[in-house]
Amino acid sequence: MEATQPYSLQDLADACGGEVVGDAQTLIRGIGTLEQADPGEITFLTNTLYRDLLSKTRAAAVILGPSDRHATALPRIVSDNPYACYARIAQRLFPFPQAVAGVHPSAVIDPAARIAASASIGPQVTIGAGAVVGEGVVIGAGCVLGAHVVLGEGCWLYPHVVIYAGCEVGARCILHSGVVLGADGFGMARDQGGWVKIPQIGRVLIGADVEIGANTTVDRGAIEDTVIEEGVKLDNQIQIAHNCRIGAHTVIAGCTGISGSTRIGRNCRIGGGVGMVGHLEVCDGVTVSGFSLITKSITQPGVYTSSIPSQPHRIWMETLANLRALPQWVKKLRALEQDIQKLKEE
Amino acid sequence: MEATQPYSLQDLADACGGEVVGDAQTLIRGIGTLEQADPGEITFLTNTLYRDLLSKTRAAAVILGPSDRHATALPRIVSDNPYACYARIAQRLFPFPQAVAGVHPSAVIDPAARIAASASIGPQVTIGAGAVVGEGVVIGAGCVLGAHVVLGEGCWLYPHVVIYAGCEVGARCILHSGVVLGADGFGMARDQGGWVKIPQIGRVLIGADVEIGANTTVDRGAIEDTVIEEGVKLDNQIQIAHNCRIGAHTVIAGCTGISGSTRIGRNCRIGGGVGMVGHLEVCDGVTVSGFSLITKSITQPGVYTSSIPSQPHRIWMETLANLRALPQWVKKLRALEQDIQKLKEE
Amino acid sequence: MEATQPYSLQDLADACGGEVVGDAQTLIRGIGTLEQADPGEITFLTNTLYRDLLSKTRAAAVILGPSDRHATALPRIVSDNPYACYARIAQRLFPFPQAVAGVHPSAVIDPAARIAASASIGPQVTIGAGAVVGEGVVIGAGCVLGAHVVLGEGCWLYPHVVIYAGCEVGARCILHSGVVLGADGFGMARDQGGWVKIPQIGRVLIGADVEIGANTTVDRGAIEDTVIEEGVKLDNQIQIAHNCRIGAHTVIAGCTGISGSTRIGRNCRIGGGVGMVGHLEVCDGVTVSGFSLITKSITQPGVYTSSIPSQPHRIWMETLANLRALPQWVKKLRALEQDIQKLKEE
Repeated sequence: MEATQPYSLQDLADACGGEVVGDAQTLIRGIGTLEQADPGEITFLTNTLYRDLLSKTRAAAVILGPSDRHATALPRIVSDNPYACYARIAQRLFPFPQAVAGVHPSAVIDPAARIAASASIGPQVTIGAGAVVGEGVVIGAGCVLGAHVVLGEGCWLYPHVVIYAGCEVGARCILHSGVVLGADGFGMARDQGGWVKIPQIGRVLIGADVEIGANTTVDRGAIEDTVIEEGVKLDNQIQIAHNCRIGAHTVIAGCTGISGSTRIGRNCRIGGGVGMVGHLEVCDGVTVSGFSLITKSITQPGVYTSSIPSQPHRIWMETLANLRALPQWVKKLRALEQDIQKLKEE
Repeated sequence: MEATQPYSLQDLADACGGEVVGDAQTLIRGIGTLEQADPGEITFLTNTLYRDLLSKTRAAAVILGPSDRHATALPRIVSDNPYACYARIAQRLFPFPQAVAGVHPSAVIDPAARIAASASIGPQVTIGAGAVVGEGVVIGAGCVLGAHVVLGEGCWLYPHVVIYAGCEVGARCILHSGVVLGADGFGMARDQGGWVKIPQIGRVLIGADVEIGANTTVDRGAIEDTVIEEGVKLDNQIQIAHNCRIGAHTVIAGCTGISGSTRIGRNCRIGGGVGMVGHLEVCDGVTVSGFSLITKSITQPGVYTSSIPSQPHRIWMETLANLRALPQWVKKLRALEQDIQKLKEE
Repeated sequence: MEATQPYSLQDLADACGGEVVGDAQTLIRGIGTLEQADPGEITFLTNTLYRDLLSKTRAAAVILGPSDRHATALPRIVSDNPYACYARIAQRLFPFPQAVAGVHPSAVIDPAARIAASASIGPQVTIGAGAVVGEGVVIGAGCVLGAHVVLGEGCWLYPHVVIYAGCEVGARCILHSGVVLGADGFGMARDQGGWVKIPQIGRVLIGADVEIGANTTVDRGAIEDTVIEEGVKLDNQIQIAHNCRIGAHTVIAGCTGISGSTRIGRNCRIGGGVGMVGHLEVCDGVTVSGFSLITKSITQPGVYTSSIPSQPHRIWMETLANLRALPQWVKKLRALEQDIQKLKEE
């Protein structure tokens, strides 16, 4: 991919605090993978599995770690954390597109909303009374902010984000299309054969530097607030129920569902398709494997798993039949134990 | 949370048919949990696990059941169903915001649509020909109603609900942002190495008093209609495929997927992350545990489960290896049986 | 369901290449199931389980296969592929509604976008600079196309589709409401206790004749592109992560999540609620049962499964306890083996 503007290798090394080895004036016009990089592009080696590709790459330069310092003759940037270095260099080469400050004439802004002069409000946006939009915020086409929503400075909302009344989002958050923050939690009381809706009067509070993927939903609290702490990263199609708290810098992959009143610690890594039953607490530093289920509180950091990989259908059906027959086998085993005991005693 | 307007304890007891014990004129300004309630707020005790918190709460009054009648000296409302009582009191204290009747000038309404005079149509809404919008309906910003959609009186659509042509929604339904009703079911016929689309000509019919959570989808029927009966409550990110029927007052938690032509009975409780294979029937009064899978019809009320809670990764990997080795263990067990039989016969 | 216009049985047979048996001038006014068809409607028999219904149907005509040619006296269309024949006849009876060419005055189209004269652009649509919209394309209300998006001829976008900048969609694709194409993949690098965002600079490329269901998301590539080949059919609420490639004519049912850099072959059938861990390859012609998990590459066509159907809760809890006790049973079994060995040797 070609960047909007070329940079010297030295410029890029400065962006990530790396060390240049070789010609620091090498001009870099884009980024590519080891296999696909075009001449003029920079590439990176962050996984030793791919070291063989280094000799074949057409890239103009490489980002790599100290142990690979001498693995190539190409101009290179050596960094203790080459993956983060790649991320920062990519940010330099592919900055967020510049948004023009101002409010599109088709946007419908309540006169009692406060919009920073440097904010960019796209077409068909609706903003309610008392909302506060910070400096440098970009709001894509068709977004809807309810009354008294607060967006911190530098937030970027892609088209079609909906934020219900009263929710607050910290600085520099990125919300992708289809995100819904602050819809009612799933609360109702059984009464006389039907259900009575419980008004959901808490809010959603999002810390700074949070990114939320497309079509992910975070429900408002029943009474207190649902809280996503700073630096959390949520992938697409995640559901966070009412009254959850997600600790700082925790990452959650796509399609995961977190039930109500779950408290997840800081620096956790939750895989995709995970389920968490509600009203439990997960401590800091926990990893949950993809497609696993958490039903009890976790008090020790570590990796937790319950996922079952597929087998050819016929084999799996046997496995399943054996699983269900376990009580019979256990009974048989016990009978055998007794038989043997008797034989021994004879 | 502070309500828009305070009420006397007696007013609130009247809202739920409860009995006041203590000063009926106590002024209530909001609702809080036992732990977090501010002075002036009412709280509730619906789970005996939390009875200890009663002595420490700063709340001005408590909602509780007959068995806890004497558990506090605070002014209180005694109810046979304290949870439903709390729900009704919260509805009194936190009513739906008042929407102003009328059509926002940016809305695009087909001249052949019929909009009740008391309805409130928000900015950027699009309504197709022949649509009928009932009295008191509120349609949030950016909603789209296809041709001939019918919304019963008192429906509340949050921003960005899409309803495809011909679908009908009963009175007092609440549809949250990102809900899509009436998209095509997943129907196609294999032909010559490709797929021929099967037009989905049925509709979605939603009964009265249904609530549907954010980003939930309900597909239109292939030929006949997909039906959600009255009083059903659907959480966020649920997928209901074509030709399903969900019985009255059934509740379904988030991230659950129901395959085509499934019929679920009345008063069922389906957990989150559940899967239901299609073309089956679930009788009234069935509970399905979260993250379980239903592959056969269920004819008896009760609780059904197949979810597997996580273990520490290493332990789970052993469990999994043992599971897959079951056929070998079974073979061994049978061999032992024969050995013992022989030993006995000797 | 009544069609907009009646056709003779002969006309409908011509639509699918079937053979008429009986009165070819029978007028067909709609389609119904065997059980529910009204007089004047055509029905179909594609599953021998339902053959008994043939004698009771009120339909005016039937579509069926060669082996059922004589199973009814009704006028009929005999086809080698009666299901595909039904699909084509339904397309004739229920064609896509005609959209009027032109741009709705409320749409916001960048002057540097190229919109074909025969395209129909609905209300509140936003189209960015450099976008190209082909002949006969229909774009529903509120859709947003980013800069340089390309839509091939005859695409149909239902309301509220969002396509991020640079993504390309082939001819005749159908995208349902809430689809988000090209949101950022879930890429970040760990650094100093936080996360650095990795710009996602690839695109999403969709082949011709693809259909994508409501609220499904397809992320753009990290560096190279995410690719959905021609004829793929995706159901609702699916998540396709960055850098995936889905082979031609593969179908994926609802709620399935595909992790990053997964390559799925051609003509695969992936069930609903399936999870696929990333960086793996699935060959052509693979079927994955619903609610199963794929964690390794698959090199042989066939059916793969790991789903576990529910049992009554009490029974399942026993099964689960036995599963977890397997290491103990295995230990016991080994001890018995040794005991028997000793007994034999005595």
